[in-house]
Amino acid sequence: MKKIHLNAFNQCSAALQSFGQYRNPRERTSTGYTQTHHWVDLAQLLDRGGFDSLFFADVHGAYDVYRGGAEAGIRHAVQFPGNDPTVLFPAMAAATRHLGFISTYSTAYYPPFHTAKLFSSLDHFTGGRVGWNIVTSYLGSATRNGMGGLLAHDQRYERAEEYMEVVYKLWEASWEDGAMVRDGARDMHVDPAKVHPIDHRGTYFDVAGPHMCEPSPQRTPTLLQAGQSGRGIRFGARHGEAIFVTYPTVEAARPRIARIREAAREEGRDPAHIKLLAGLAVVVAETAEEARLKERRLRSYASPEGGFALFGGWTGIDLAKFKDDDVLDGLDSEGIKAAARWFTAAHPGRIATLADAREEMKLASLIPLITGDAVQVAQEIERWADEADIDGINLVPIYQPGSFTDFIDLVVPELRRRGRIRGSDASISSGGETLREHLFGAGHAHLLPDHPGWRIAGVDPRTRRPH
Amino acid sequence: MKKIHLNAFNQCSAALQSFGQYRNPRERTSTGYTQTHHWVDLAQLLDRGGFDSLFFADVHGAYDVYRGGAEAGIRHAVQFPGNDPTVLFPAMAAATRHLGFISTYSTAYYPPFHTAKLFSSLDHFTGGRVGWNIVTSYLGSATRNGMGGLLAHDQRYERAEEYMEVVYKLWEASWEDGAMVRDGARDMHVDPAKVHPIDHRGTYFDVAGPHMCEPSPQRTPTLLQAGQSGRGIRFGARHGEAIFVTYPTVEAARPRIARIREAAREEGRDPAHIKLLAGLAVVVAETAEEARLKERRLRSYASPEGGFALFGGWTGIDLAKFKDDDVLDGLDSEGIKAAARWFTAAHPGRIATLADAREEMKLASLIPLITGDAVQVAQEIERWADEADIDGINLVPIYQPGSFTDFIDLVVPELRRRGRIRGSDASISSGGETLREHLFGAGHAHLLPDHPGWRIAGVDPRTRRPH
Repeated sequence: MKKIHLNAFNQCSAALQSFGQYRNPRERTSTGYTQTHHWVDLAQLLDRGGFDSLFFADVHGAYDVYRGGAEAGIRHAVQFPGNDPTVLFPAMAAATRHLGFISTYSTAYYPPFHTAKLFSSLDHFTGGRVGWNIVTSYLGSATRNGMGGLLAHDQRYERAEEYMEVVYKLWEASWEDGAMVRDGARDMHVDPAKVHPIDHRGTYFDVAGPHMCEPSPQRTPTLLQAGQSGRGIRFGARHGEAIFVTYPTVEAARPRIARIREAAREEGRDPAHIKLLAGLAVVVAETAEEARLKERRLRSYASPEGGFALFGGWTGIDLAKFKDDDVLDGLDSEGIKAAARWFTAAHPGRIATLADAREEMKLASLIPLITGDAVQVAQEIERWADEADIDGINLVPIYQPGSFTDFIDLVVPELRRRGRIRGSDASISSGGETLREHLFGAGHAHLLPDHPGWRIAGVDPRTRRPH
Repeated sequence: MKKIHLNAFNQCSAALQSFGQYRNPRERTSTGYTQTHHWVDLAQLLDRGGFDSLFFADVHGAYDVYRGGAEAGIRHAVQFPGNDPTVLFPAMAAATRHLGFISTYSTAYYPPFHTAKLFSSLDHFTGGRVGWNIVTSYLGSATRNGMGGLLAHDQRYERAEEYMEVVYKLWEASWEDGAMVRDGARDMHVDPAKVHPIDHRGTYFDVAGPHMCEPSPQRTPTLLQAGQSGRGIRFGARHGEAIFVTYPTVEAARPRIARIREAAREEGRDPAHIKLLAGLAVVVAETAEEARLKERRLRSYASPEGGFALFGGWTGIDLAKFKDDDVLDGLDSEGIKAAARWFTAAHPGRIATLADAREEMKLASLIPLITGDAVQVAQEIERWADEADIDGINLVPIYQPGSFTDFIDLVVPELRRRGRIRGSDASISSGGETLREHLFGAGHAHLLPDHPGWRIAGVDPRTRRPH
C-alpha cells in the first residue's frame, strides 16, 4: 500500500494563504512569526506529530497587482511582512529529531556560490535535514526591489540549468571524501589534493571554486521544485526529488501527475524517484458536523480581498477589473479563463462568478479544502494517493498551530491505522537521519544514482569520484 | 573609570588565525565548527562569562596569494572551509540571555534589499541582539567565485555609501511604529498608510520598497566596521557604532584611535559614540610561569605557513618570494616595508627577518599577544584602555574553547575586581536587552540621535517620523 508523506507548508510571515485569520482567537502566527520560540514550538509539534518536513515559501516584495498597487496586499498581510526562514533551521533542528526543513531560494537573486555555501552550512547544522525548493522567481515587485532581473521565461530556465550545473559541481565534485585529514605528522589540516577547483566558465556564471564547505551529510541538499508551466515541469522532472503541486481536484491532478512522471522517465530517471506532494487544506473535527461548523466559523474570519491580492501576484490578473456577477468563463482574457477552469473543476457547476471566486478564496486561497471527520479526511487523502498517484501532501494551514494540531490529533492516527504512514510511533522514521532518507529510505543520504546531478557534476555515483 | 567591552572574535571555520592548533588535544573548533551545539555551547560560555558579543568574520573564497595559489591556504585550513555564521544566530540567541551576535556581511555580494531583510529577521529572532560588520570585501578569490565584482577602492566606498542609504531608508523610514494593527473591525491586518515605499533611485541601486520586515527591536542592527585605510576610516567614522581595530602596540594605536575619533567628530558625532575594540590574543594561566610554558606549548602546535597564507590574502604580498634571512625592512616593496614596520613596532629590535615573521605568526597571526597571569593580562588590557583610549577588546582565540574559558576563569574576575566590567554578576548587563544597549546603555535600542543614519534616511530622531 502506498505510504503518504506529510509536509507542512509555511511562510515566515504574518499571514500565509488564509487572510483575516488574525481575527481567530487561536491564530498565533500573526503575532508569533517574529519569534524564534514560535517556530521551534511548531517544529517540535510537527516532529512529534509524524510530519516528514516543514517547508517555507519566501518572497522579496509585496503583492501589488490587485487594484494596481500594493495597498490590499499590505492591508491583508499577504505573505508580507516576512522574515528570512533559513536562519531558523539550525534552531529548529536542534530541538527536533527527524523533521526536515525546506526553504524556497531563488536562482534569480543569489550567486550560485553563495547558495551552495548556505545550503551546505544548513545541511551541516541540521545534520542532513535540509531541502532546497528551487525557484526562478516570479514577483515583479522583487525585481523593483533590486532582487535579480526578470528574464524571459525560457531564458530564466536556461540560466537556472547552468546555475544547477555550478552548484552540483560545488557540492559533488569539489571536495572528495576524507579531505579533512588533521594530520599533524604531515603538517596537514586539509589534504589539498582532495579539494578541487571547479573552474566553471559558462554563459551566465564563472565560478572558480573550490567549494567553501566540506561535504555535508547529504552533500547536495534534497531538491524540491514547484513550477507547473511546461518548462517548469521539465526542470522539475530533471532536478526535483520532490515536487510541490497544486490541483483543484483528484481528477485534474491525475493526468498532470502522469505527465510529470513521464517527463522524469524522459530524463532517464525512475518516475518513482520524484515524490509528488499535493497542496491540500483540511478542516477536521471529531465529528463531520463539528467540522462543518468550524469551516463556517473560519470563513467568518476571512478577508477575501487578501486572496485576490495573492491571486494577482501569482497570475498577473487584477480581479478588481471584474464585477461581482461577471461570469468568469465568459470574460475575454486567457488568464481569467484559466482561473475559471480552475474554479469550475474545483466545484463543478458552482463557481462561475467573481462572487463565487471570493467565497472560494476565503480559506487557503486556491488550495483544495477537505472538511470532515478524521475518517472522511483520511479517505479523501487516500483517494489523492491512489487515484491521482501523489506521494504525499503539502498541508497548507488555515491558522496556526490549530490546523496542524487538529491534523496531528485526528487525521495522523487514522492514516496510521490505515498503514499509510511509515514508522510505528508518533515520530516518523524510515530508519535514516537525513531528509533524503525520509523520502527514499535509509542509505539514500546522497542523490539517487539515476539523478542527473551526478552526470552534470561529472562524478560517478558508484565511486563518487570524477569520471 | 573606563569600562571595557568584551567581544569574542570567531569565524565559522575549521581554523581562524592560529593555524596548526588541530594538534592541540583541547582544540574543539576544527571538528566542531559544523555542529550547531558546538556554537550554542560557546555562546552560553561567553554569555555567562561576561562577554558582550560574539563576532563572526566570514569569507567567500580560499586564500590564494601565498606561493601563487590556494594550496597552503587549504592545507592549513586558513579560514577555509567555512560555513555561513548568520544561520546560527537564532539558535545561539535562544540559548543565551545577553550575548550579542555580529556577522560580517559584504556590500559587494548581496543586494541591499536582501541584507536589510536578513538583518531585520535576525534582529527579530535574537530579540535585538544582532550586529552587522559592514565590509566592502577584499578577497580576489571571492570575485573569481562569482561573488560581486571588484571595484576600485574609492568607487567601492562610494557604492557602499549608497548601499547604506538604501538600508537606512528600509530600516528607519519604510515602516512607522504601530503599523501592525490587526484591526478586525476595519478589516485591516496591517495599516497600509503606515508602510511606505522608499523609491530609491541612485547610481548603483534602484529599490522601490517597502521593506519586507516590520520594525525589529533595534530597527537598524548595531553597525560595526573594520576598515583601516583612509577611506575605510572615514566610512567607519560615519557609520560605525563600534569599530574593530588591530594595532601592534598601545603606542601605535594611540594616534590612530585619536584620528578615528576626530573623524567621527567631523561627521557631527560625539567621538565617544564609537566604541573601539582592539584585537588581542591572550595566553593566561594561574601563574606567569605556567602561562609562559603554555605559550611555548601552543607555539609547538603551530603551522606558520598558514599565517603566511592569511597575510597574503590580507595584503596581497606573497612572502614565499623572500628568504628566511631576508631583512624585511630592507626589501624593495612598499607592502613588505609596511609589514616590517608592523613587526618592528610589535617587537622593537627583534623582528626583522622572514624567520622572525614566521615565529611571530605562529599564534594569532598578526594579533598582539599578551602572555601572563591574570593580573599581568588585566593590567595590559587596562593600559590599552587608558593609554590607547580603546573601549574594549576583540579577543582572538588561539584555540577553542580554551582561550575563552581561560580568559573567563582568570581575567574576567580580575577585570571585574578592578571595576572595568559592567554588571555585578557573571552575566554582563547594562540594563538593556539589545546589543546597542550593551554598548550605549539602557534606552538606546535605536541609533543614537547624532548618528548620520537618521539624516540619511530622512527621519527625525526625536519623533521618528520622516522630515
